[in-house]
Amino acid sequence: MVQVNENYLKLKAGYLFPEISKRVNLHLQKSSKFSLIKLGIGDVTEPLPFPCVEAMQKALEEMSTSEGFKGYGPEQGYIWLREKIAEHEFLSRGCQITPEEIFVSDGSKCDSSNILDILGNKNSIAVTDPVYPVYVDSNVMTGRTGICSNNGSYEGLTYIAINEENNFKPEIPQEKVDIIYLCFPNNPTGATITKDELRAWVSYAIKNNSLIFFDAAYEAFIQDKDLPHSIYEIEGAENCAIEFRSFSKNAGFTGVRCAYTVIPKTLIGKTSTGETINLWSLWNRRQSTKFNGVSYIVQRGAEAVYSDKGKIEVQKLIDFYMNNASIMRQKLIKAGFKVFGGLNAPYIWIKVPDQMNSWDFFDYLLDKANVVGTPGSGFGLAGEGFFRLSAFNSLSNVNDAMERIINI
Amino acid sequence: MVQVNENYLKLKAGYLFPEISKRVNLHLQKSSKFSLIKLGIGDVTEPLPFPCVEAMQKALEEMSTSEGFKGYGPEQGYIWLREKIAEHEFLSRGCQITPEEIFVSDGSKCDSSNILDILGNKNSIAVTDPVYPVYVDSNVMTGRTGICSNNGSYEGLTYIAINEENNFKPEIPQEKVDIIYLCFPNNPTGATITKDELRAWVSYAIKNNSLIFFDAAYEAFIQDKDLPHSIYEIEGAENCAIEFRSFSKNAGFTGVRCAYTVIPKTLIGKTSTGETINLWSLWNRRQSTKFNGVSYIVQRGAEAVYSDKGKIEVQKLIDFYMNNASIMRQKLIKAGFKVFGGLNAPYIWIKVPDQMNSWDFFDYLLDKANVVGTPGSGFGLAGEGFFRLSAFNSLSNVNDAMERIINI
Repeated sequence: MVQVNENYLKLKAGYLFPEISKRVNLHLQKSSKFSLIKLGIGDVTEPLPFPCVEAMQKALEEMSTSEGFKGYGPEQGYIWLREKIAEHEFLSRGCQITPEEIFVSDGSKCDSSNILDILGNKNSIAVTDPVYPVYVDSNVMTGRTGICSNNGSYEGLTYIAINEENNFKPEIPQEKVDIIYLCFPNNPTGATITKDELRAWVSYAIKNNSLIFFDAAYEAFIQDKDLPHSIYEIEGAENCAIEFRSFSKNAGFTGVRCAYTVIPKTLIGKTSTGETINLWSLWNRRQSTKFNGVSYIVQRGAEAVYSDKGKIEVQKLIDFYMNNASIMRQKLIKAGFKVFGGLNAPYIWIKVPDQMNSWDFFDYLLDKANVVGTPGSGFGLAGEGFFRLSAFNSLSNVNDAMERIINI
Repeated sequence: MVQVNENYLKLKAGYLFPEISKRVNLHLQKSSKFSLIKLGIGDVTEPLPFPCVEAMQKALEEMSTSEGFKGYGPEQGYIWLREKIAEHEFLSRGCQITPEEIFVSDGSKCDSSNILDILGNKNSIAVTDPVYPVYVDSNVMTGRTGICSNNGSYEGLTYIAINEENNFKPEIPQEKVDIIYLCFPNNPTGATITKDELRAWVSYAIKNNSLIFFDAAYEAFIQDKDLPHSIYEIEGAENCAIEFRSFSKNAGFTGVRCAYTVIPKTLIGKTSTGETINLWSLWNRRQSTKFNGVSYIVQRGAEAVYSDKGKIEVQKLIDFYMNNASIMRQKLIKAGFKVFGGLNAPYIWIKVPDQMNSWDFFDYLLDKANVVGTPGSGFGLAGEGFFRLSAFNSLSNVNDAMERIINI
């Protein structure tokens, strides 16, 4: 009989969001007089920016003519989109990233898990705790960890706690780690990283020949002009970092599907015999062989994000969600909660009241306020005692949810 | 320094299509008085069916309103699309495939390489020769083969020749193989498989506890009513086969991106300790963790393939390309070539004239007729001495190309 990949059996069974669904459904069976307000999943709610819609409509018209029809596109993405990204996201901030170093894809979730394809299985891996579960699970599935211990952490992974004590700033490890996942603005805590702090990580990586996976999916929500949007704003990062970016959260593309990954041509890895290998060429080969590019229609939609009108509409979306975050922070603080995040990120990280754990607080908010959030413990051990609320919702839902919480 | 996945270094450097591009570009520098006609890559050329365009335009309109906006969809695809596929592709042919067994994706190339994620590295693998290169390369990249030998085949893989002697019918192996890739109608040879022949493969797989990867990307081109479109038309296949399907070739979605993979819930694999594991649940976990679903807009376009109007338009596309194939067959036979395929597939497989090899014939057609095809040897050892021409082009290009070849 065909043998399965046994690493899948190490995965924790009760994954976070299915467990949330289960509890929500049970709750709805018992009580449905109030409508539920979901501030759980990090999914956008507002309509697509109209310049993106227009661009996609135009692309569809092209595709319906013999002259305008497009078949297979480049696996790496169309050069006109890669050029726009390079110009507006990187060159404009002084980062020397070329269009060829940008690989357009259908999602950051895919990229941040597929990236492991090109790397050896012996690299030591560090993640923050709490953490976006995909980083951990993709390592488990590819056999880069041991089993899951009773406390929910996997053997073989290094967990770097981000908590109240360290002000949600991951401490640089004392020992050498080959690969480090960093996500800033952070999901789930909403914490940020300064240029100096990021510079210290780049120094560590260069000194230790480590590779940083920098997930900047939420960079568009940064309000503080001094915070870095890209790791390539730090000198030397082109020698030690891969960056993941997405159109999901800034342009509302979670249902449209477009993202990109930056792999500088200067990045190198080595073989077991010490030969150095260019990571760009490995990823280029991976994408050419195992991927067939993003829909032409979608890429035209993504390109419109960088038009004058597109920029204005995307900014409106960001402002809208960050206004929600601001309201949530104010109301929750007024209600007596200790609140983190929400200043440069669409996530509010609440300290749950004493004598409750994250899931107690989940049940409490669900029962008393008909509000759904995400228990911090679902993101890792150090998330216990915290709770994530997302600012992705309508203004009226955000206001209603906050009133309900205040009035418990 | 970070260690790379060294298996990538086993991959042959001169990949088929880059080599073709190189020779074409050299040719264009020397001579450009005739326009080039490309019958090389299997990419469609005709406009999208208008019912698909309409459906995608409607989806875009929805996405531009608060009420109609869709964020993250199910990673497995929307149930309305999975239901349509189950009904029209499977139930209508008597195959008991449920919507839950259908996983919508952004491409068959992705699916047929990603499927290896859920399987162990020790399974023995068989492919046909010639073969779609992605099957081989994805095995090489994941460390399932040895090195590439001088003749271009990889150690550790079983190659099953399909050639003139066996009428392009792969012979069932004498020994036990864990996983077998079959593609019918075949790319590149255009050969087909009968129900009886496929039944023999299913019997072999059941007897040997093997798993068949059945790639039916070209099933829509079948003209002969007795040929199977799906492996699930064969009793027992639900216990031994995964099927890959695509909207790329029937509905012209190569630039739109939508495909699907069928994993019956009855399929099982085992662990090293002999525990049986459901493959569906592994793939479901894989897709939930490493994929975020196909664009809502695109899925609405795919759904329209199954509308009354959609079916008519798709049939017109198929008829159009198969008329091209018919013309090509007739003209090439008239010109004295020995020709295979093209009756139930959009590919014509030409035996190259004596004293030429596949690349000689490539250069010959390029130089003498300004026509680009694909050398059979690019698909494997047993492809040497053959040449693939694709029927995906405009009628006038097909006619011109054939006239040029006849008049060499």
